[in-house]
Amino acid sequence: MEVKIRELEAGDIWNGFLETLDHLKPTSGIRREKAEEVFRMIDSNPDHIVLVAEAGGSIVGTGSIFIDHKFIHNGGRVGHIEDTVVSGEYQKRGIGDMLMDALVEISAGKGCYKTALNCPDHIIPFQVRRGFKVGLQNMRYDH
Amino acid sequence: MEVKIRELEAGDIWNGFLETLDHLKPTSGIRREKAEEVFRMIDSNPDHIVLVAEAGGSIVGTGSIFIDHKFIHNGGRVGHIEDTVVSGEYQKRGIGDMLMDALVEISAGKGCYKTALNCPDHIIPFQVRRGFKVGLQNMRYDH
Repeated sequence: MEVKIRELEAGDIWNGFLETLDHLKPTSGIRREKAEEVFRMIDSNPDHIVLVAEAGGSIVGTGSIFIDHKFIHNGGRVGHIEDTVVSGEYQKRGIGDMLMDALVEISAGKGCYKTALNCPDHIIPFQVRRGFKVGLQNMRYDH
Repeated sequence: MEVKIRELEAGDIWNGFLETLDHLKPTSGIRREKAEEVFRMIDSNPDHIVLVAEAGGSIVGTGSIFIDHKFIHNGGRVGHIEDTVVSGEYQKRGIGDMLMDALVEISAGKGCYKTALNCPDHIIPFQVRRGFKVGLQNMRYDH
């Protein structure tokens, strides 16, 4: 199986991308205009990158990163990884590792001193094997 | 003591803003050109807002938020609060609450379904009182 990791393109949205995100949260019910608006918002921001894993002509994995410009750490940058998921039948084939490698590489290439993500407890061992350390406590406020 | 919460302006950088951030991480040693470059990067992004607390003619507190545009949650948005701090002598006067109120209000105004932040364990009770819940585990990779 050949897997290609590359940036999200407009045509991917309706070619498995939204169904891939369904494995994370229900997504593919989004209105077409809304999905295209989100694509344009992200596409216009050079500091927000969505990667996809393409296999067999459709999208089977995705992960995103945005770059936070800070004054602390001598004007340092932090890469925030979000919404990384591989479609059910393509899991346990190393695609998650390929996406994570590419995201961390983008973060390093953008000069980030740190890459951060939030994950459920059962994913912690996977991230520790990849060199991540437990950080601060993530807190959420639901509007 | 009158405290005003407002957006960061270029003139604030050398009027207590960097020294306020020193209470979080050493910051005020940053080169002038670098600080001004970071300001321009943030100022040009409508989804990245830095607030300051002004008291007695100088900056004594700050907090920032950026908006993450997602495909999940029907094209939902998440506000990420970062680098919130009040200068030592101005702590325990409610300025942290004023900054947090304003940041969460910005997040709601931008249509976010969730506002997230990462904090050290001793700050958790403060955030829980404000309506935040413990979320996922934050992980970090140091480049």
